[in-house]
Amino acid sequence: MGRGRTRGLMSRRFDGEHTVADSDEVVVEEPMEIRLDGHLVATTMRTPGHDFELAVGFCHSDGLIDDVTVQQVRYCAAWPGGDADATAPSGRRRASDSDYNVVTVDTGGLAAIPEPRLNTVSAACGICGAPSIDQLCERLGTIATVEFPLPLLASLPDLVRPSQRLFDRTGSIHAAAAFTVDGTMVAIREDIGRHNAVDKVVGHLRLAGQLPATDLALFVSGRASFEMVQKAWAAGFSALVAVSGPSSMAVEAARAAGMTMAGFARDGKLNLYSPA
Amino acid sequence: MGRGRTRGLMSRRFDGEHTVADSDEVVVEEPMEIRLDGHLVATTMRTPGHDFELAVGFCHSDGLIDDVTVQQVRYCAAWPGGDADATAPSGRRRASDSDYNVVTVDTGGLAAIPEPRLNTVSAACGICGAPSIDQLCERLGTIATVEFPLPLLASLPDLVRPSQRLFDRTGSIHAAAAFTVDGTMVAIREDIGRHNAVDKVVGHLRLAGQLPATDLALFVSGRASFEMVQKAWAAGFSALVAVSGPSSMAVEAARAAGMTMAGFARDGKLNLYSPA
Repeated sequence: MGRGRTRGLMSRRFDGEHTVADSDEVVVEEPMEIRLDGHLVATTMRTPGHDFELAVGFCHSDGLIDDVTVQQVRYCAAWPGGDADATAPSGRRRASDSDYNVVTVDTGGLAAIPEPRLNTVSAACGICGAPSIDQLCERLGTIATVEFPLPLLASLPDLVRPSQRLFDRTGSIHAAAAFTVDGTMVAIREDIGRHNAVDKVVGHLRLAGQLPATDLALFVSGRASFEMVQKAWAAGFSALVAVSGPSSMAVEAARAAGMTMAGFARDGKLNLYSPA
Repeated sequence: MGRGRTRGLMSRRFDGEHTVADSDEVVVEEPMEIRLDGHLVATTMRTPGHDFELAVGFCHSDGLIDDVTVQQVRYCAAWPGGDADATAPSGRRRASDSDYNVVTVDTGGLAAIPEPRLNTVSAACGICGAPSIDQLCERLGTIATVEFPLPLLASLPDLVRPSQRLFDRTGSIHAAAAFTVDGTMVAIREDIGRHNAVDKVVGHLRLAGQLPATDLALFVSGRASFEMVQKAWAAGFSALVAVSGPSSMAVEAARAAGMTMAGFARDGKLNLYSPA
């Protein structure tokens, strides 16, 4: 939508002795509500841009649109009156900024009605890591793994770096990117939220008809937590490479998925956690 | 509870040329369900340890226990049968691991019944940054700011570092810590989730009767997003110092709160974003 993803403001830089006023650029963060056929799915704090991909990727990662076709994605699904129409009840008006903070994924009502999602993990998951991973195994099966050479996986941070444009401007934003086995970057997305960056890449691939991403590796700029593995698994990535370390449950999930998973990918080195 | 916060496993280290199997230590990540007087509040992925503080801090940050006394915090609130008793309906049995993944904060029913919290921001918040900040202003007022010397704020990362024990072992876990104006660290907590680390510090202070934390500064090892400012604001911290950068909405919220906020605190330097 051409809306700003960074914002200029004044800050004061303290160098240990003196303070100097200077112009600065920070990442924009705004809430976005994701709806599926008009039903609320979740609200996430995100950096504007690629919002449709974010909405589709989120729904895909959560298994909400597994067997259905996405017919349309659009802004501003519901007016306060509740009708899912882009025209206000009182007639035409100009769109405001907050109209772009609600995105609806339309499947023509073919998707199941989502339960509004609680923080991180549904309360129905059993409150223990093992059942969650068992459920994912059942839902997603194991991944048809394409083998990626370790030197390529270890070089992903360096391959991504030149494309981290918002990071260059702000010094503080996450990135996710998808790579082929010959090192071609097919998508990169930046967002203040690590999860959002991944959902945007997944949504991009889903809308381009490129899922499952069996022939691709996913790079993430932060840690590899359970949720990151869950999203990579749902998209079918053969490999997941994180700049920082994995959690115990992330390792367990990656091994159960049959996904290659590496952490601490830095300076051409990495630690390989999966396969065991 | 003495349960492990890190876990040993085998990984393979790739140094650019060779791969060597080696023992490794990763952060434990497990879901924890937070309940208030038996009602579900949220489920979060956390590193076990200081779970009661996490539950109390989360409820405090969300404004759920503002005017009530916490009477008790305990594990395993609800059995499948639904009664809030630590004894199974069929009699005594041994506690299992997942019993320690449900924590109830008891106020004797004096707290309002919480609505299960959607991801990040309640759908009721207006889906635009400004109303959220306005609501916080109304609920929390501005902070009675104690002035912290910039050299002290810039030194917080170095003061925290020797106490980041789980980081030493895993190389990948967030920390939050509270400091007095003379540089004394009164609490430090580590967790795979940035938000959890802050909630644990807040919960610790709340249970110790030390809120509002007007005389304290809060250090966080990651970015300063809106939610981090919101939590610091609800706890009444006079200053928030982040190792990485702030978001646009974090800066707006900190300025509205009257809270001192600094980012990029590294090597004895920082950028000051609030006051404007």
